[in-house]
Amino acid sequence: MNVAIGIDIGGTNTVIGLITKNGNCIHEEAIKTKSFKSAEQLVTTLCDKIKLAAAYLKEKIEVVGIGIGAPNGNYYNGTIEFAPNLPWNGVTNLSKLFSKHFSIPIAVTNDANAAAMGEMLFGGAKEVDNFVVITLGTGVGSGFVINRDIVYGHDGFAGEIGHVIIDPEGRDCGCGRKGCLETYASVTGIVRTTHIFLGKSARKSKLRDYSSNQLSGRIITEAARNGDELALEIFDYTAQKLGFCLANLVAISSPDQIIFFGGLAKAGDLLLKPTKVYMEKNLLNIFQNKITLKASELNHNASVIGAGALIWKEIELKSHTTSYVPISLN
Amino acid sequence: MNVAIGIDIGGTNTVIGLITKNGNCIHEEAIKTKSFKSAEQLVTTLCDKIKLAAAYLKEKIEVVGIGIGAPNGNYYNGTIEFAPNLPWNGVTNLSKLFSKHFSIPIAVTNDANAAAMGEMLFGGAKEVDNFVVITLGTGVGSGFVINRDIVYGHDGFAGEIGHVIIDPEGRDCGCGRKGCLETYASVTGIVRTTHIFLGKSARKSKLRDYSSNQLSGRIITEAARNGDELALEIFDYTAQKLGFCLANLVAISSPDQIIFFGGLAKAGDLLLKPTKVYMEKNLLNIFQNKITLKASELNHNASVIGAGALIWKEIELKSHTTSYVPISLN
Repeated sequence: MNVAIGIDIGGTNTVIGLITKNGNCIHEEAIKTKSFKSAEQLVTTLCDKIKLAAAYLKEKIEVVGIGIGAPNGNYYNGTIEFAPNLPWNGVTNLSKLFSKHFSIPIAVTNDANAAAMGEMLFGGAKEVDNFVVITLGTGVGSGFVINRDIVYGHDGFAGEIGHVIIDPEGRDCGCGRKGCLETYASVTGIVRTTHIFLGKSARKSKLRDYSSNQLSGRIITEAARNGDELALEIFDYTAQKLGFCLANLVAISSPDQIIFFGGLAKAGDLLLKPTKVYMEKNLLNIFQNKITLKASELNHNASVIGAGALIWKEIELKSHTTSYVPISLN
Repeated sequence: MNVAIGIDIGGTNTVIGLITKNGNCIHEEAIKTKSFKSAEQLVTTLCDKIKLAAAYLKEKIEVVGIGIGAPNGNYYNGTIEFAPNLPWNGVTNLSKLFSKHFSIPIAVTNDANAAAMGEMLFGGAKEVDNFVVITLGTGVGSGFVINRDIVYGHDGFAGEIGHVIIDPEGRDCGCGRKGCLETYASVTGIVRTTHIFLGKSARKSKLRDYSSNQLSGRIITEAARNGDELALEIFDYTAQKLGFCLANLVAISSPDQIIFFGGLAKAGDLLLKPTKVYMEKNLLNIFQNKITLKASELNHNASVIGAGALIWKEIELKSHTTSYVPISLN
C-alpha cells in the first residue's frame, strides 16, 4: 500500500501518521517535541519512527513522500522560520534534514495550511474551490484556499489571520503588538476573557471554582453547555470578536466556506452560531447570507492528515510530468 | 493591427479605449454615464463607438475582444450587480448586452481588478506574482493577485478592501456600516478628515479658503506640497488609517508589492511614505521590511488599459485550446 507520511510538529507534541491516498490515517504516533534539543535530533528520531512504522502493519508499505505541518513552516523554503513556541531558534531547513534520510518528495508548510489541504482532499471542502480553514488552538492560524490552491503569498507566510489586529488598543499579544485576533479567539484568548469577566461580573459561575492554571477551553465549554450564564457571555464575547474579524476576511477573499478546527472549535455551535450572527452583522451587503461556517469533518488528527495531503496533492500535480519512486518500508 | 476594447464604466464617465497587445492605448473616448437611462442604451452607444473607432486610425483594426471594468462588476456572471453609483439598479448582464452586437470574447470585472490585470500585463507588476492594486478614488477598491491570478472569490466579489472595517465606532459609510477604510482613505474620506481637522485645530491653513463643495483631493494635496501644516497633518492621519489596514491585509495575503492608483494616489510619496511607516509599525515581524508600496506606472487611463488587459489575458490563457476570430472594423 502506498502512503504519505504526515507530520504535525507542535510546541508540545509532534505527531507522525501514515496517510493513505484516501486520507485514512492507518498508523499514528506522538513524541514530545521539547525532549529534543535540536531539530536534527527530532528529525533523526522521526525518520527512525518512519522506518519502523511498517512493523506495526500487516501490508507491504511504500512511502511516496513526507509532508510536514509546523508553526511558521515555509512552503517555498522547506523551512521553519523563527517559530516562537519551538525549542530551537532561527531558521531550520527541515526539507534538507529529512532528505538526508529519504530521497522522496518532502513538503513543509504551516499547520493551518496543512489542515486546509486536508479539508480540500479528504474533508469538508472536497467540492469547494474557495475556502478558509481557521485553527483555534493555543494560537489562531489560518489557511486560505483560492481556486483550490493554498495561498502562500510572496514569502510563504500568507494566512496569518491570528495576527490581524482587531483592536489597536486591545490585549497584549505574544508577537509584541496589541489586539491581535488570537488574543481573543484562541484557547488562551478565551481563558483571558474568562479572567476579565470573572473580575467584571458579580455573577455566580462554575468557572469561579478553577484556578488560573486549571482554566481551559474544555472547562469553559462544559460550563457553557451546562447553561452557566457567565460562560455563555464569554462565548458571546469571543464570537463577537471572531465574527467581526471574519467579516473583514470575507471582504478580501470572499470564501464559500470557513472551516474551524483546534481546541476551541470543539465547542461547535456554541461558538459558531453566535460567530455567524456577528459576522453577518458586520458583512457588506453583497456578501451576506452566502457563507457557511462549520467545524472540520476530519477528526482529532486533521493536522497529520493535512500534512499527508500536502504530498498527495504534490503527486497529483506532478503525476503528468515526473515519475516518483516510493520507498519500501518492509 | 489587433486590439482589445477596454471599457471603464464609472459613476461619472465611461471611457472606451483601443488597447494593443503591448498595452498601448491608441484611441480613447469618454462619454457621460449618467446621460443614459438604461444599460442597454449605454451599451448600444458604446458599440457604435467601437464600430466607428477605426475611422480615426490609419491602420486596419481587428478587435479581439471587449474587456469591461465597472463598479461591482462580476467576472463569473458577466454582470454589474447592485452598483450604488450607477444610474440603473439591480443586476445588469453586460456580457449578454455586448454579445448582441459582437461575437467575440467579452469579460467583465470590477475596476480595481481590471487595474490589477493592467499592472500585471503592462505596468509595474510584470514580474510580480503576488501583489495588490488599491484604487484611492471616490471610494477605495482593490484587486488581489495571487500567483498571477486575480482573486475573484467564490462569488466574483472578492477584494473589497474599501469595506474592511478599521474602526467599528468610526465614520458612517455609504454601505450602511461604520468605519470602513474608504471613509478615511478615499478622496471623499480625506475631504471628511479635512473638515474634522479644520474644526478641531485652530491652525491657520490655506484649506480654510475653500467651501465644503470646493475642497478636493487635488487642493488638499497642493496645500500639503506647499508645506501647509494642517494639510500635512491630514495626510499623516490618512496614512495612519491606510497603513494600519494594509498591515492586516499583508497578514492575510502577504503580497510582494502594493500598487496605488486613483485621485488620491496622485499625491505620491506625500501619502505613500508615511503610509509605509504606519504599515511597518503595525506589521507582524515576519512581514517587516519586505513589501514595496508604489504608485501605478500606468498613466491616467490605467482602468481602460486594465480592462483591455483582461481580454489579452483571456486570449493568452486560451490560445492553446481555442482559436478566436477577431472582428475587422475597417
